[in-house]
Amino acid sequence: MRGQGEIEQWGFYEVALNGPAGGNPFRDTQLSIVFEGAGRTIEVPGFYDGDGVYRVRFSPPETGVWRWNSRSNAPSLSGLTGECIATAPQSGNHGPVVVSDDGFHFVHADGTPFRQIGTTSYSWALQSAEKCRQTLATLAGAPFNKMRMLVFPNVASVATDPFVRTGAGPKDWDATRFDPAYFRRFEDKIRRLGDLGIQADVILYQPYDPVRGYSDMSRSDDEAYVRYVAARFGAFRNVWWSMANEFDLIESKSEEDWDHLFRTLVDADPHDRLRSIHNIRRYYDHRKPWITHASIQNGAAVDDSIRAELHRAFALKPVIFDEVVYEGDIDKRWGNLSAEKMVERFWHGLIGGTYVGHSETYAASGNPDHSWLGQGGTLQGESAPRLAFLKRIMEEGPAPGIDPIQPWWNYHVAGKEGEYYLVYFGDTRPAEWTVALPAREDSAAGSYKADILDTWNMTVTEVDGVIELSRGNEYELHAPSTGAIALPQRPYQAIRLRRIGGNG
Amino acid sequence: MRGQGEIEQWGFYEVALNGPAGGNPFRDTQLSIVFEGAGRTIEVPGFYDGDGVYRVRFSPPETGVWRWNSRSNAPSLSGLTGECIATAPQSGNHGPVVVSDDGFHFVHADGTPFRQIGTTSYSWALQSAEKCRQTLATLAGAPFNKMRMLVFPNVASVATDPFVRTGAGPKDWDATRFDPAYFRRFEDKIRRLGDLGIQADVILYQPYDPVRGYSDMSRSDDEAYVRYVAARFGAFRNVWWSMANEFDLIESKSEEDWDHLFRTLVDADPHDRLRSIHNIRRYYDHRKPWITHASIQNGAAVDDSIRAELHRAFALKPVIFDEVVYEGDIDKRWGNLSAEKMVERFWHGLIGGTYVGHSETYAASGNPDHSWLGQGGTLQGESAPRLAFLKRIMEEGPAPGIDPIQPWWNYHVAGKEGEYYLVYFGDTRPAEWTVALPAREDSAAGSYKADILDTWNMTVTEVDGVIELSRGNEYELHAPSTGAIALPQRPYQAIRLRRIGGNG
Repeated sequence: MRGQGEIEQWGFYEVALNGPAGGNPFRDTQLSIVFEGAGRTIEVPGFYDGDGVYRVRFSPPETGVWRWNSRSNAPSLSGLTGECIATAPQSGNHGPVVVSDDGFHFVHADGTPFRQIGTTSYSWALQSAEKCRQTLATLAGAPFNKMRMLVFPNVASVATDPFVRTGAGPKDWDATRFDPAYFRRFEDKIRRLGDLGIQADVILYQPYDPVRGYSDMSRSDDEAYVRYVAARFGAFRNVWWSMANEFDLIESKSEEDWDHLFRTLVDADPHDRLRSIHNIRRYYDHRKPWITHASIQNGAAVDDSIRAELHRAFALKPVIFDEVVYEGDIDKRWGNLSAEKMVERFWHGLIGGTYVGHSETYAASGNPDHSWLGQGGTLQGESAPRLAFLKRIMEEGPAPGIDPIQPWWNYHVAGKEGEYYLVYFGDTRPAEWTVALPAREDSAAGSYKADILDTWNMTVTEVDGVIELSRGNEYELHAPSTGAIALPQRPYQAIRLRRIGGNG
Repeated sequence: MRGQGEIEQWGFYEVALNGPAGGNPFRDTQLSIVFEGAGRTIEVPGFYDGDGVYRVRFSPPETGVWRWNSRSNAPSLSGLTGECIATAPQSGNHGPVVVSDDGFHFVHADGTPFRQIGTTSYSWALQSAEKCRQTLATLAGAPFNKMRMLVFPNVASVATDPFVRTGAGPKDWDATRFDPAYFRRFEDKIRRLGDLGIQADVILYQPYDPVRGYSDMSRSDDEAYVRYVAARFGAFRNVWWSMANEFDLIESKSEEDWDHLFRTLVDADPHDRLRSIHNIRRYYDHRKPWITHASIQNGAAVDDSIRAELHRAFALKPVIFDEVVYEGDIDKRWGNLSAEKMVERFWHGLIGGTYVGHSETYAASGNPDHSWLGQGGTLQGESAPRLAFLKRIMEEGPAPGIDPIQPWWNYHVAGKEGEYYLVYFGDTRPAEWTVALPAREDSAAGSYKADILDTWNMTVTEVDGVIELSRGNEYELHAPSTGAIALPQRPYQAIRLRRIGGNG
């Protein structure tokens, strides 16, 4: 027996082994460890971490004893054995995020709903240690629970060389030799996000750096890269895979290439982390089996809950609008959304049964490369507190999430029929809302309490009295004893109804 | 040599052969004819038409001599030869409708755009001869160029027995024996639609008749049925295949069954007619390779051109909203759309780069089964003339169709950049429109003439003067010398801009 260790379920277990350092260990040496436990056998690929050290990282999906033995084409790495004892998860460890059973939301492996409030800071993890600390401090006080981040830099960065350099030019690097220090630095940021309970949506490719060309490698180099990051990062339970940002701008790869890289990733990642791909103009086919959820760039789609919902109808999977134009004040239309409109897009997305992502372009220099979007640091905008309010409302709502109710009949209502309803009024300023809720089943009739949510001013105002919902017509429940609920004639209001009793 | 014949290209060539009449000829006898011509070899399956007669129907895709020889497991049908001489198409014969090269519109095989203005009359072809004549007379004076029609009846009909009856009960029929008279009657209606230049969108399955259960056959019976209709109807150049209406309500078939039946249809139809499938709540995966265009039921989707456009983005194929709620006055929400709203949905669909379908539920009896939707007859509604106006506008526009321009930036503008623009105002009543058109390329700048289209009152009013479009900002062309175009403050207006000159 080579090694023994104890780790909580869904924790991070690492086997470090000494092996060959000569030749090109990244390509010459194959290593994996087979873990057996809980009636399952899981083969976990390892990776070379430099200086003759190989690592295999495993996050046990079940408690109990996991016996392991290693396989390698290097005799010194082959036939080693050990065991990993997975103990009950500690408080705050809910396991990785997976798709909920209903197919449209997210939950942690222990069943805890994951209410996605994302943000993007593309190259934050590649900045100086001080800047990274600042970003993490900002995140510690912000509502965001998912961070989109690039492996390869898109703006000025401290860490720029994932591969061993071979000369002074931007393209002088050896795609067959990773620089372990780069990835060690990157995974430290994944780990720190995990400590904050934040999912790391790791973006493997991007179209913004043709000068270096990291996203334009050959197929075999791409395969090696995907396998390397899967082996290095996959055991962190907060990792999500975003195959690419604006994949359809990467001219060196075809749709068939992306399909191939997804198959490679599925094969390389025994932890089966969430997988998506982000577009600019052309939607990828999100029904393909390796896609776990649709990652969408489309600002107009979340100006209307029904546009948002249509993405669920097409993908038949959870939908995250990861890019909906950024809060900011630059002269580009992709970066000058008001905070009000940013928050409104989150709400329309919510009513459509989908999720939305934030970022902002404010920068003292006026250059959005230096903003939160590019490098992280501090937030300047006004949307974050409102997104915290939204998150609270989501957490108070039904699990695993809020579903649109009859959107194809033009209702902008979401919730869970017979239990919970949200009606959102966007930038309109109605004086009242006549209670009318779509309902196929009479069982939704009953007694409800209503609150008026001011989604901008972050207040919850209870409506006096009880709303007695009863069958109004073939299609709707009405509340004859209430009629209409008065509203404050301000934009960004919502009404929440929660059931307190049976048939009234 | 057995037979010789002359037929125009894309015409209907039929070989009738005498063969075995004993046993079950529908199942026992295999027959096909291999046609060779224009450097191609096309194997066309035949079918049994009763009384010992077999037929093979072929629509030659190219002019020239097509030599043929027959293949069969019946010696009397095997090894027969002949030739079909395909002559130049006659005036008015533009060939079958196919998907345009750009992937989002329809054209006839000779390149003539097909501007879809559809309607639905589910069981019109199964009514009395007199009623069918009435329906055809109505269509002769209407703008519709595609008719959705069921093979199996959904409302009271004269023709109800596609299969040989075996008793008095509704389920007493033999799925292995077609009644040729039923199909002969049906194809006569396809032919008559063709004479009017109307596409027959033939719906193979539907969920509305569980009592007879024609849509709930076994897989082998389904295969035989699909092969039979493909062989009988496929040579009519105006045939489209709609695999099912509201497929997701047919509980006896799974998604895998539908996939299988599409594969069967592709294999059985050498004429490669257009193929789609129509939903109620669950969208089929329209990116599957056998789907030529997305057939969608969703009324809310065409209340907004951007919702409509999203269907193109997901399907990456032409989109027809074949069911958007019907014009009518019944107390069901699916059948009480005003004529104004029906026409508006066509226009929003157009601006989204998609196509829409009409029908109406007016019936003297108050029962929509008796309406145009169910049985055909005459039209009572007010939308048809406005749809004729719309069709004229479409025909005056760019070929093959009108594309949305930057919909994901919330523009409700369509056309062809630098050449033609349509702006539609729906039920709003603006007093003017400030000229602002999204444009990435400066080449769209230039001189344009504008018309105000009153889409309800069917008028075209030329705007005085010339609109000089020039770069207004990074994203838009403006017209500083015009500023705004005055509008009549009535709903359902549109503005059309057509280029008359180069850079102004």
